[in-house]
Amino acid sequence: MKKLHIVGLGLLGGSFGLAAKNKFPEILITGTDASEKNLQDALNLGIIQESKDAPDADTDIVILATPADTLGDLLSKTLDQIGENTLVFDVGSTKAKLCALAAGHPKRKQYLAAHPIAGTEYSGPKAAFAGLLDRKVLIVCELEQTDLQLKEKAYELFDALNLKLRFMDPEEHDRHLAFVSHLSHISSFMLGKTVLQKMEDEKNIFDMAGSGFASTVRLAKSSPAMWSPIFTENKDNILSALDGYISNLTAFRDKISASDGQGLSDDMAEINKIGDILDLEK
Amino acid sequence: MKKLHIVGLGLLGGSFGLAAKNKFPEILITGTDASEKNLQDALNLGIIQESKDAPDADTDIVILATPADTLGDLLSKTLDQIGENTLVFDVGSTKAKLCALAAGHPKRKQYLAAHPIAGTEYSGPKAAFAGLLDRKVLIVCELEQTDLQLKEKAYELFDALNLKLRFMDPEEHDRHLAFVSHLSHISSFMLGKTVLQKMEDEKNIFDMAGSGFASTVRLAKSSPAMWSPIFTENKDNILSALDGYISNLTAFRDKISASDGQGLSDDMAEINKIGDILDLEK
Repeated sequence: MKKLHIVGLGLLGGSFGLAAKNKFPEILITGTDASEKNLQDALNLGIIQESKDAPDADTDIVILATPADTLGDLLSKTLDQIGENTLVFDVGSTKAKLCALAAGHPKRKQYLAAHPIAGTEYSGPKAAFAGLLDRKVLIVCELEQTDLQLKEKAYELFDALNLKLRFMDPEEHDRHLAFVSHLSHISSFMLGKTVLQKMEDEKNIFDMAGSGFASTVRLAKSSPAMWSPIFTENKDNILSALDGYISNLTAFRDKISASDGQGLSDDMAEINKIGDILDLEK
Repeated sequence: MKKLHIVGLGLLGGSFGLAAKNKFPEILITGTDASEKNLQDALNLGIIQESKDAPDADTDIVILATPADTLGDLLSKTLDQIGENTLVFDVGSTKAKLCALAAGHPKRKQYLAAHPIAGTEYSGPKAAFAGLLDRKVLIVCELEQTDLQLKEKAYELFDALNLKLRFMDPEEHDRHLAFVSHLSHISSFMLGKTVLQKMEDEKNIFDMAGSGFASTVRLAKSSPAMWSPIFTENKDNILSALDGYISNLTAFRDKISASDGQGLSDDMAEINKIGDILDLEK
């Protein structure tokens, strides 16, 4: 692992850079970002050592870490640019469209579709930190489509970063993520919106917000530039998750309206099981 | 502060007991719980020193920490029982009905309506800990209705426990809390429900759940015995909050459905302001 190139030097791209430099001190990391300020910050923070628009021909791995709706064009362009011993992987939150697009490219074997289940509500190079990816799950799709030797390169990086690999097909990935990630962000954003609207009438409402509110609304600080494309790219799955959510909320609302204490209690007791499931998964 | 009596030895009642014993080592804390097991646990954990159905006549303060729908009857009964130098306060999450009921009692001046903004998703005596209340907000309603000397007793305890007092009328309390606490719990429970339903078709869905999901779904582990009464007691305010939430979700859903990336992005940028507000409140 001698040379890495990162396109998109935000929270994820930046954290890959910092962690890779920690594990491979001799590595040269080049990279670029659509924002001149992000690029400068990334240089100052040591995320990359050199600003470069395109990867050198002898680059081992190129990481694409830009918003979901830009990854298609970027992947095509990058595959066109790279030398024959370079692997490209992206870290986007949606995988089906990207894999379908990659399928038609003559250099498909040099691409690996990946998605690290890691993030915070903050964004940009300054939010990046070397520990973000440590012991996190990395979902890999269509592994069989990637060249065997190039895969070994990717494994070398993933192992060094303590990523735990999980394999699934891209459609399954997008279906699951709509429920366990994208829906959480929407519920949190809309919770934030609802309370902000109420605040227009009621001053000091946040004085009363405890840790429960803080944790459910945390994701409402997330980056619109990152999330808007995810919501539209994974539209069908998200609409299905969101419709289920709204329908559950409406049914629960009706039980409150009917003062059906027992019904509410039974519902919640059933849902409490999620505690055991989440603890088991740790 | 020589004698304290606690009715309801769960997370909140138990934490008051542990913290009071820390700050006043000589204090005698008596108490009771509807559950024989909770009562035994509370004795074993040192939350109370003595099991007692009713407070002694020389008890300084009685804390009522049972589910919201039981507090009305319990408050009436307790006011009937106590000596003339005893103050009673409750720690319930809804205040309007309780204050209206207390207004008619001849011993109204011996009651203080309180609500500590503190809790976790766990319940019962074993979930209690001395630090739970430290530096938390305590909302106090209708302070002017409470006897001056008895108020001093309450302040002695609140100050020792580092509680930060905020004053408001009971209706305002219930309106605010519907938005910044009760709605969070409902959104979290329904998120848990929606994902559990999906899990029936999709195995291993939780493998992909990151920290964002964990934080938004954390409250879905909360106690049905505590929350069902809150939802029905504060019904009107909660329905108003919930209707606003569902309407925001539906509008956001329609923007996703229309692939209106710019509209989604503008919405989220506006909601991002909540980050600044929450940070300021810390």
